[in-house]
This record gives sequence, C-alpha cells and structure tokens, in this order.
Amino acid sequence: MRDVAIIGIGQTKVGEHWDTGLRHLALEAVQAAVKDAGVDHIDALYVGNMLSGELAGQEHLGALVADFSGMRGVEAFKVEAACASGAAALRLGYVAVAGSMADVVLVVGVEKMTDQMGPQATSALAMAADADYEAAQGLSFVTINALLMRRYMYEYGYKKEDFAPFTINAHANAMHNPYAMFHQRVDVKAYVNARMIADPINLMDSSPVADGAAAVVLAPSDWARRLGRKGARIIGSAVATDTVAVHDRHDPLVLEGAAISSYKAYEQADIGPEEIDFFELHDAFSIMAALSLEAAGFAQRGGGLRLALDGEIGIHGRLPVATMGGLKARGHPVGATGIYQAVEAVQQLRDQASENQVPNARIGMIQNIGGSGATVITHILERIE
Amino acid sequence: MRDVAIIGIGQTKVGEHWDTGLRHLALEAVQAAVKDAGVDHIDALYVGNMLSGELAGQEHLGALVADFSGMRGVEAFKVEAACASGAAALRLGYVAVAGSMADVVLVVGVEKMTDQMGPQATSALAMAADADYEAAQGLSFVTINALLMRRYMYEYGYKKEDFAPFTINAHANAMHNPYAMFHQRVDVKAYVNARMIADPINLMDSSPVADGAAAVVLAPSDWARRLGRKGARIIGSAVATDTVAVHDRHDPLVLEGAAISSYKAYEQADIGPEEIDFFELHDAFSIMAALSLEAAGFAQRGGGLRLALDGEIGIHGRLPVATMGGLKARGHPVGATGIYQAVEAVQQLRDQASENQVPNARIGMIQNIGGSGATVITHILERIE
Repeated sequence: MRDVAIIGIGQTKVGEHWDTGLRHLALEAVQAAVKDAGVDHIDALYVGNMLSGELAGQEHLGALVADFSGMRGVEAFKVEAACASGAAALRLGYVAVAGSMADVVLVVGVEKMTDQMGPQATSALAMAADADYEAAQGLSFVTINALLMRRYMYEYGYKKEDFAPFTINAHANAMHNPYAMFHQRVDVKAYVNARMIADPINLMDSSPVADGAAAVVLAPSDWARRLGRKGARIIGSAVATDTVAVHDRHDPLVLEGAAISSYKAYEQADIGPEEIDFFELHDAFSIMAALSLEAAGFAQRGGGLRLALDGEIGIHGRLPVATMGGLKARGHPVGATGIYQAVEAVQQLRDQASENQVPNARIGMIQNIGGSGATVITHILERIE
Repeated sequence: MRDVAIIGIGQTKVGEHWDTGLRHLALEAVQAAVKDAGVDHIDALYVGNMLSGELAGQEHLGALVADFSGMRGVEAFKVEAACASGAAALRLGYVAVAGSMADVVLVVGVEKMTDQMGPQATSALAMAADADYEAAQGLSFVTINALLMRRYMYEYGYKKEDFAPFTINAHANAMHNPYAMFHQRVDVKAYVNARMIADPINLMDSSPVADGAAAVVLAPSDWARRLGRKGARIIGSAVATDTVAVHDRHDPLVLEGAAISSYKAYEQADIGPEEIDFFELHDAFSIMAALSLEAAGFAQRGGGLRLALDGEIGIHGRLPVATMGGLKARGHPVGATGIYQAVEAVQQLRDQASENQVPNARIGMIQNIGGSGATVITHILERIE
C-alpha cells in the first residue's frame, strides 16, 4: 500500500452564489487545486455531491465537471453518501492512489443549494434520512437532530445554553477565514436569543444552507517529497456505516459508526486520540459536535459538551475544533464539506492558517458525517516536514 | 496489481415491482450474489444508482443497503454516472480489489423507476444530459437520441426499418431469460408499426423504464481458483468521458468516449476486438447500439447497422450482442443495468445461459454508457477454466 499525500488544495468562498452555476463553482476550486499542486495531468476525477439532481436537475457530474475543467476524456464519477459525499470521494481517491491504480487523482466536492432555499432544501436534505421510516413520518433532518439534542439534555442534565461554546468558537474562528460564509462574532446572548427552528435547536445550533466547492489533488507521498511540496500525508482513512434511521440504533446518543470509523483510522495511523492536534468535526448541528467528540474518544459519554464548556476546543485549547469556522460558520455546502475539511487541515499542517494557526500542529483529524451518523468517514493527516 | 474475478452473481426479475421497495430489491440481488459466492464477509459495498433521490426521495443508499442487507457497519457508498452508474460501481470495486485495498467487495446496482412513470421518469432521466444547455432547451433523453438516429439515417442512407434487427434479436434472446422484462417476439412488422415516441424513435427502438437490482461479488482471482469457482476474471477495465452535451462533440456520430474506453480495455486485456466472443452493449436506443459497435471497433463508421442487417449479432453470429435480451428486452433499470450486463456475461462464461448460450464463449465484453456517450465504462471478462 502506497503512502498518499494531498499535494494541492483549492476552495471557493462559501456563501450564496446566485450569479454562478454548479460547474463554474467546481471549476474555480479545481483550477486552484491543480495550480497549487503543480501537476499537468490527472488520472481520475472523483466528484462528491449530494443534491445536484434534486436542486439543479443535473446528475452525471463526473463527466460534466471533467469536461468543463478542460479534462475531457478522463475517468470521472460522482460519489454520494449524503452529507459525507465529499469525504466519500476523498476516500475513493485515496483507495485508488494507495493501491497504485492511479498516480494523481483530483477530488472535488461541490454543492449549490441556495437557488432552492427554504422548504425545497429542507426536503432535499431529508433524503439523507430514511425516506420510508423517518421522512415519511414528517421528520426532517433538523427535527431528528432536535430529538437527539433534547434527549442529550435530559440524560446528562445540560441546559440549552451549555451548547453555546461550539457556536461561539466556530464563529470566532471564521472571522479570519476569508472563505467562510459568516464573519460575525456570536456571544452567549446572541446564541440564546436566536430564532428557534425545532426546539431546542435554534438558528445558532444549525449550519447554514450554502453553495461552495473545494478540491484536493492526491498523489503518492514520495512525489510530494520529490517536488518539495509541503502538505499532508494521509496516515489514516476509514469508513463505517450505521443504520440510517436513528430509531434502529442500540442507543441514539452513541454514534457507533463514528466510533468504528475513528478507531479504524487511529489503528491505521498507529496513534491514539491523545496525539491528535486538532479535529475538524462535523458540526452540522451542535449536538453532532458533542456526540462526535465522544464517539472519537476525546470525551466520555456525556462529556463532549464538558470539553467545550471547559474551553478546550479553541485554537489554543487542548483540542481545537472547527479551526476555520466549521460547518456552522464556514458554511455547509453538504457534498463539498468533507473536502473543505481536508483543505483546512492542510492549511493548518502547512502553517497557512494565519490567525487561526494551531501552534505546532503536526497531526489533524477530519471527520465527515452523513445523515445522523449513518456514514462516518475519518481521515488523519500528518504534516510533511 | 492483483487479478480480480467475479465470484458470485445475483439478480431480480426486471419489471414493474409496485409491491416492493428499493431496499428490498437490492436485498434480493445481494442475497443471491453472496450465496452464489459462498462468502461470509465483505470488506466494502458499492451501490450503483442514478435516480433514487429524484424518484423515491431517498439518497444515502450505501448505508441504507448495507444495513438492510445485514451488513451494518461496513464501508459503503453510492456511485453515480447516469445510466452507467452500475458499471461505475463495478469499476470502483475493481480498483479496490485490484489495488489490494479490499479483498471482497460487493457491488450492487439498483433502480426503482416505475412508481413514477411518464413525465416524471422522462424528466428524471434528462438529468443524464446537460441541464443548462440541453434539458433547458426542451430536449429529453429520447429526443437527443432521435436527433442522432435521424442524422445517422441521413449520413449513411439507411431506412427506419434497417434498425429492426437490434430489437428483433434482443426480444428473441429475452424469450429464454426468466429475469427479462419482456417475453414477446418482435418481427419487422411489429417494429415498424410501433407507436412513435420521437420521430424516428418508436417504442421498439427504446428500452423500457423498469425496476430491478443485480449484484456481483468481487475477489482476487486466486481465491476463485482456490475455492474452485467457475466464473470470470476481469482482464480489462476502463472508463472514459466525453462532453455531456452532444453539440459540443467533434462529430455527433462518433462516440469518442466509447472508443477510448474500449481501446483502453483492449490494451489492458492485450487483445483486439476480433477476440471478443460476445458483446453486452448498451442498447438503450437502437441508435446507441449501432454507434457503440462502431466505436468499439466491431464495424467501420456507418457499418454498425450493417453488422446487424447481415445477421452477425445473433447467438450464433460472428458477434452475439444483447445475449440475454439487452436493455431493450431484459429492461433498463438505469443504475442497475451495468451490473445486469456483468451478471449475464458471467452466465455466458459459466455455460449457464441455457438456450442463449454462446458456443465456446471464452471472452466477453460489457459496455455501460451514461448519457449519450458522456461516460463509457468497458469491462472485458474471461472464463475461468
């Protein structure tokens, strides 16, 4: 198995891109990543996307993005795993390069959601849940997470405002990320007073519907060294699934898929959670941030929130999370998010994170979650010195 | 690179399954394939599907099928490349096993289209075309193919009824395939008199909207030999893309993607077209059958139809095609079709094709086409003696 590195990164600003199309967004990220990598040829293109069919009437993004990016003819596919579609494409790119089936793979995540804001986006996102046994009962994605959050508060005795640190941290970090959607600080008062969406989830617990594209170029690590590229080696790559419907789980507050995915990645990297210098977690809702910290071994059951309340998740804390704004404040263009996480981790490991630089960041973990924990994809990245 | 074999196959009958769901169809194919392979464990599951979001409000089929098939936890994704989604999943499964990143991969193609017959299915299928530059102009998938067919007739001087042999052959072969959707013989009169859809394409030029699922189990070839499995080695696997919009091509009557994909597969297999004993082609429309025969090197430009008119495409002809009914008569549940082709090729190479057995079949080629040739995926399979 070959050692694989990310040798180039690219991203568009996350936001409401009403004046441009899906293929143009992808192109912008692709051009930046290819230029950054300094490659003149790629062997394959994997596109992570969840909603282009439902929201733009366009499937077949592999061929579409390949052609529009000037790579007509190249092997290309779309990969989908709900909100983990970006990391799914990254995982398959990793498999191809690690297994010596390709040398240079371009992975792009792209999503354009804001053309269809409101009910249509909510209904489209519900396709990540179980259509027959959840959505058909009137559950949307946010209401499923609201049930989980309420249960978490009940089981462990937390108050609503105890979740505020995740949001405050994400918005603080996004202030210095020019690609982030939001550049507004949030305090406890703003968090508590935000508009309610599905009690107890309010607007400040929820990542925003957004447009965006991000891309990475994968190649064997010895290429990266030979070309003198600073960047990141992928030292762990793992996927696990769980039931799509939350009611089928052994315990709704334990993300078993996230635990299995995390520990498979630790095992491959031959490290434990204590060696992770920062964690780009999947804070689609603040309850998901808490649950994923616990599943990944950074906190005991019910302790994910405690980590945040104790001030450990900031840039200078014990475990910085959402270092460039996370899903909450950078924005969550669903199929692109997993690639944004990879791009941001590489920025950290290259010392390119400016005011958000995690001191001495050597190993970072990124985790992309599809549905309410039904697909969990974890990658562990290490600095190339 | 490891040698990869298909060691198990499974399929459901193709048709209108109004009394069952997407996950149940997938399960039926998965159970058959896993039993046929005699494996008690799989490393990963790749699902080929195009339309579950649009037609069933359900994405996230990787996790959904994994859980429903009793494989909760396993690595799983959905792969999409329009009507080539099935072969795209097969290709990625091949990459994982050939590159030693997985030992046993289950690949399932599933599609459920008939719950939404009529305009909604036509509109969903148009997502394989270019949404901005084709569909937005009112072109559907069938009208794009109608333009190609008309041009073909004009350029080469063929009449409408010259296309009849493809349909007659497909329906004749489907008579003996219990999994096929149609069991009616078609003659020239029935072909010519069929209801017009988009002139010159009539109902007998078009593959039907259908439900179905098919599955294969991939493993290293030395396992197959050790277990004494008769089956098929994958000796060629190749993907090429082209423009999604037909008007962007150098020549609308030349499927460049199909030519590149075919010749890459021949090169890997170290054979030429003359060594192919049968060809499971992508006869979504009869014009596609003609164009793909030319692109794959079985006929000169404009000669694809001649091959059919000369009686060469029957079971005992020089190049049998659509040996179990093809897309036209077995049916075309789009994301499943590429896996049906693989299943049928293995039936031929195991001498399990009953009345449709191609004599002395040793090497078969399968080709799955997404859009009007924008993604073309070719696999060449060889008998395991």
